[in-house]
Amino acid sequence: MAQGIIDFRSDNTGAAAPQMIEAIAAANTGTAAGYGTDEWTAALQARFSDLFETKVRVFPVATGTAANALALASICPPFSAVYCSSIAHIETSEGNAAGFFGSGTKLVLLPGSHGKVDPSALGDALAGAGVGLTHKSQPAAVNLTQATDLGAVYRLDEIATVTAIARAHGLKVHMDGARFANAVARLGCTPAEATWKAGVDILSFGVTKNGGVLADAIVVFSPDVATQLPFHLRRAGQVWSKMRFASAQLIRYVEDGLWLDLARRSNAAAARIAEELSGIPGIRLLAPVEANEIFAEMTPAAMDVLEKEGIRFFRRGARMARFVCRWDTSDAEIRALVGAAGRVRAAVA
Amino acid sequence: MAQGIIDFRSDNTGAAAPQMIEAIAAANTGTAAGYGTDEWTAALQARFSDLFETKVRVFPVATGTAANALALASICPPFSAVYCSSIAHIETSEGNAAGFFGSGTKLVLLPGSHGKVDPSALGDALAGAGVGLTHKSQPAAVNLTQATDLGAVYRLDEIATVTAIARAHGLKVHMDGARFANAVARLGCTPAEATWKAGVDILSFGVTKNGGVLADAIVVFSPDVATQLPFHLRRAGQVWSKMRFASAQLIRYVEDGLWLDLARRSNAAAARIAEELSGIPGIRLLAPVEANEIFAEMTPAAMDVLEKEGIRFFRRGARMARFVCRWDTSDAEIRALVGAAGRVRAAVA
Amino acid sequence: MAQGIIDFRSDNTGAAAPQMIEAIAAANTGTAAGYGTDEWTAALQARFSDLFETKVRVFPVATGTAANALALASICPPFSAVYCSSIAHIETSEGNAAGFFGSGTKLVLLPGSHGKVDPSALGDALAGAGVGLTHKSQPAAVNLTQATDLGAVYRLDEIATVTAIARAHGLKVHMDGARFANAVARLGCTPAEATWKAGVDILSFGVTKNGGVLADAIVVFSPDVATQLPFHLRRAGQVWSKMRFASAQLIRYVEDGLWLDLARRSNAAAARIAEELSGIPGIRLLAPVEANEIFAEMTPAAMDVLEKEGIRFFRRGARMARFVCRWDTSDAEIRALVGAAGRVRAAVA
Amino acid sequence: MAQGIIDFRSDNTGAAAPQMIEAIAAANTGTAAGYGTDEWTAALQARFSDLFETKVRVFPVATGTAANALALASICPPFSAVYCSSIAHIETSEGNAAGFFGSGTKLVLLPGSHGKVDPSALGDALAGAGVGLTHKSQPAAVNLTQATDLGAVYRLDEIATVTAIARAHGLKVHMDGARFANAVARLGCTPAEATWKAGVDILSFGVTKNGGVLADAIVVFSPDVATQLPFHLRRAGQVWSKMRFASAQLIRYVEDGLWLDLARRSNAAAARIAEELSGIPGIRLLAPVEANEIFAEMTPAAMDVLEKEGIRFFRRGARMARFVCRWDTSDAEIRALVGAAGRVRAAVA
Repeated sequence: MAQGIIDFRSDNTGAAAPQMIEAIAAANTGTAAGYGTDEWTAALQARFSDLFETKVRVFPVATGTAANALALASICPPFSAVYCSSIAHIETSEGNAAGFFGSGTKLVLLPGSHGKVDPSALGDALAGAGVGLTHKSQPAAVNLTQATDLGAVYRLDEIATVTAIARAHGLKVHMDGARFANAVARLGCTPAEATWKAGVDILSFGVTKNGGVLADAIVVFSPDVATQLPFHLRRAGQVWSKMRFASAQLIRYVEDGLWLDLARRSNAAAARIAEELSGIPGIRLLAPVEANEIFAEMTPAAMDVLEKEGIRFFRRGARMARFVCRWDTSDAEIRALVGAAGRVRAAVA
Repeated sequence: MAQGIIDFRSDNTGAAAPQMIEAIAAANTGTAAGYGTDEWTAALQARFSDLFETKVRVFPVATGTAANALALASICPPFSAVYCSSIAHIETSEGNAAGFFGSGTKLVLLPGSHGKVDPSALGDALAGAGVGLTHKSQPAAVNLTQATDLGAVYRLDEIATVTAIARAHGLKVHMDGARFANAVARLGCTPAEATWKAGVDILSFGVTKNGGVLADAIVVFSPDVATQLPFHLRRAGQVWSKMRFASAQLIRYVEDGLWLDLARRSNAAAARIAEELSGIPGIRLLAPVEANEIFAEMTPAAMDVLEKEGIRFFRRGARMARFVCRWDTSDAEIRALVGAAGRVRAAVA
Repeated sequence: MAQGIIDFRSDNTGAAAPQMIEAIAAANTGTAAGYGTDEWTAALQARFSDLFETKVRVFPVATGTAANALALASICPPFSAVYCSSIAHIETSEGNAAGFFGSGTKLVLLPGSHGKVDPSALGDALAGAGVGLTHKSQPAAVNLTQATDLGAVYRLDEIATVTAIARAHGLKVHMDGARFANAVARLGCTPAEATWKAGVDILSFGVTKNGGVLADAIVVFSPDVATQLPFHLRRAGQVWSKMRFASAQLIRYVEDGLWLDLARRSNAAAARIAEELSGIPGIRLLAPVEANEIFAEMTPAAMDVLEKEGIRFFRRGARMARFVCRWDTSDAEIRALVGAAGRVRAAVA
Repeated sequence: MAQGIIDFRSDNTGAAAPQMIEAIAAANTGTAAGYGTDEWTAALQARFSDLFETKVRVFPVATGTAANALALASICPPFSAVYCSSIAHIETSEGNAAGFFGSGTKLVLLPGSHGKVDPSALGDALAGAGVGLTHKSQPAAVNLTQATDLGAVYRLDEIATVTAIARAHGLKVHMDGARFANAVARLGCTPAEATWKAGVDILSFGVTKNGGVLADAIVVFSPDVATQLPFHLRRAGQVWSKMRFASAQLIRYVEDGLWLDLARRSNAAAARIAEELSGIPGIRLLAPVEANEIFAEMTPAAMDVLEKEGIRFFRRGARMARFVCRWDTSDAEIRALVGAAGRVRAAVA
């Protein structure tokens, strides 16, 4: 409905990719067994095992919050601590779903640049965690947001460094891949390289922000990790009786590289805008723009200018603006933002 | 994919109504604010308030299990008891989601005919519940499944009798309306009469089993009940960022009476089959067939005959068969079952 | 304070054994490391390992409810079902602590005579439990109350029969031994025979009802069962910083057979009263009186007579009276009840 | 048992006050109704209402962790945030009991000097908390540790400043008074002034660390706050059947000012040691020593010297030593520590 606005509020505001809706329509034929015992969901397991070059289990779920919280619940005993960035999405934006589904799982916040978990901070925290001491939540998992919550992307060696520390302490590794497609597109690596080959045990595989319809997924790389997850999911009301409409989307999503094509578009839009913004005095990018999000420090007055020009975006602080590009961000929107930014430049000049 | 089979396994196996997929496609235009702040979701509130003839709040969710468990969690303190039929879906088939989301909510099972809560059993249970005694879970809500889990439908006066007892004891009333459309179609009443006018506080409004795509809903009739629910839902990973694709479906679902049309089809199919089965010696219907489900007592041998004829259905016990009709159950399927039942008749003759 | 009343309300109303208070006073010397790292708690492990003829771990806790619920939480994953008698204490009298500490653990109620779990009912329930089906809570443990909640005592072979079924289905066995001393005194067996030798994995070891001061305990027979329990306990606020005052009691409790001496007294009092009551027309014992509790069916009028005579007891139903004997039930109390019962006899004659 | 050691490890290591054991023994007479319906517990309500100069409800519990977590659970809905110092005991030392009992309650950590909650940091945090936004845990309570976790004591005006901010935002105030006696003794104010008159709603009233036997308590100042607490407590296994042995202690604890006498002893011991330590080059007190704990920065070598002299204390970091005085810390112990510190002085000279 919101036609014609210049919308950088979120990738959540974007349309679904038409291919995804077509996949739903195509799956709407005949009858299918319920609760994930259908043929589409079976095919999904095979398709993603191919994609990830190892036998995986894939569980479609309704939202990224469900994916994150239930992935963590399935790898953490009830008195656990999960280590994550201090600005991780599971910490800032999910109503403490992780604590709820984990019956008291505690998030331990770590510093790091650009929303990444700093490896030495992780090591220090684990060294002082009090493993075996009953008055301390016991370290169970590390959470990485890829792309990060400041729009940066972990390099493969950065992931491997963190996961090696986790593994050395007996922790599992969860990757919150709400923007996994954007990260893989950026890295130019394989999905396998971005995950289990770098030490990731379980992945929240984001679809919604990149063109999906009401579905995200959890991908499990270690068979032993997955044993309890189906029970957690069903009890959480995250197993659709008509699962085929999610599974068919997920299959389509990775077919012909659709997911990466969509992500490349939003990445490219963000890169183009970032390049422009970075040249403007008084505007400072808070992290390298490596995916589809731009976090920029600027004055309230500068933000006022942009809003007056009709640019829609979120203020994430008194001096922090966030601009998110979608797979369907239009050239007109990009030009509008770039143009408005030029007026900011003039205003600060 | 499962073309050509004769499928009475569940209404979960059915297709989506094409109108629902069209509604998704039609909503796929422009950008929309996230997490239910979009225009479709706003329109949904108004549309359902019209439908129910009172101001309601509607919350689309992924599954009926989520709808039930979170509806109950929002009306029960953490040390609560919920009273329900001993064969209620929340007891038999949801992995104790109610207990989980309620942090220990206890289901108290009541007898009753045809899956209904027997009013006097409810009264007796409440009289002996130990209100105010800390060693007892405290009565907080009554759950009614409409249509029931044996395929019967509560009459309006039956609902009112139960809700009056609930109200007299300070309990809220939750209706699990996974097959609410089937019940309303059967009753020939208004949605308002079937719910809040009969004393229902909160409703799980089923869509999936009757033609939806990945979405059900919670409808709240009492404003004070709804205050905590949005927080419960978000934390449960049940608030889609792209909510428009659920809300658009729900709006379409009740437009032009689509929901009732769909339900009438499955109801009619079930009625036709029930009529046939009821005349066969050795087959006994376990409850009046008032919606789209048929529960029949028969010998294992009789079930064998049906299966050999290619009829797909579920054995719910050694001598209990369940047949469920879908909105898209075909005449051919009906004829096949009726015909096969005739062979059962011959076999038992 | 309640001197001179004739008190059959509960064994909870009784005094502490003086030896237990002396044990507290004797432990009040010097300093001691906190949270169970003290010398008394270490000695307790050794003492109970001797008592049970195997290496056990003992965890003092504040109450029987805590013992039961946390014992179960430590042996059940979060989507579990625990099988128990329909009148088990964990079901009727602990505010669903089991469901709370287990984050939604479900109690499945089984019939049986005299408060016992009927083995064939257990077998049937497990056969139909839906192991591996995500919509069903997964069987994880069996709970036995010893002595039962009707005052009977499981024989060793009865325990073994139930635990064999449990083991065959992969379930753990928890014994709620709130009145374990009474049961062992009755059986005349060793504590080992009454527990792990009969297939019990974890025991709520009751102390409070039999002379203790603010402490009960959990005894774990399988080392692998105990690994998570210390964390559950600490997080539940069940690990005293000054643990020595509980551990010293527990050591004293089993020294010189004190625990069994105390239990024999309450058992003998109950037996004497039961013998008298059983001869009175219109009074029917609801279970063999094998420990310290008597459950008797009688008319409200008969209960009125007893109450008028100053007998204090609890009505557990319109026609059910419960009389509980304590280790310190006096001869005068016994005579008073027996005498009053005689007047009931006269009243009904 | 640990006779003759020089013990500054914790106030948990200390003996019980003999008066408390005498109170237990004195209460061991006759029978008493169970689960807090006895006469001692009734008298406790009256006695503490006198003490606090307002009608309060008092709930004895087993541990300070239980007191804190259940006090918070009773004032917070399940999707709540509790604001506390970054070094608060509920954050660092209770295995996230607050998160568990609150079904996902989140602790938001605030800076502040000497373990206090900084009022402006609290105000800022609440301003940015996202009240009403479902993706944010909703502010529900502030937690103050009194005395603080660095051994300082909030002044009354400091408490009032924090509670005024809390109240302005609709939050309840919980005081973790594990060392409440030490704080009141230090402040020289009334218990009322230290709590509800300064805006505190609910108090964890510490007893164990200051001479108790297996019991602490929750004190509730607002009747509406207390309504759900009894149910939380029972379900948590925190309601003793033989409550009289806890209530009798609590009554004795505040009789004749015993509690303050005991606290004054440990306070005085700490003050004396602090005075000595503060004069030693290379040792820096990390907070004013206003209760019975001393936190001192010193070199590892200095700590080595102390340990070689037989001083027992805890290293709370590479360069942080904690010394805790007990009500029964002996003059000999004090002299030993002061003497050993003198040798540190010599070593660093």
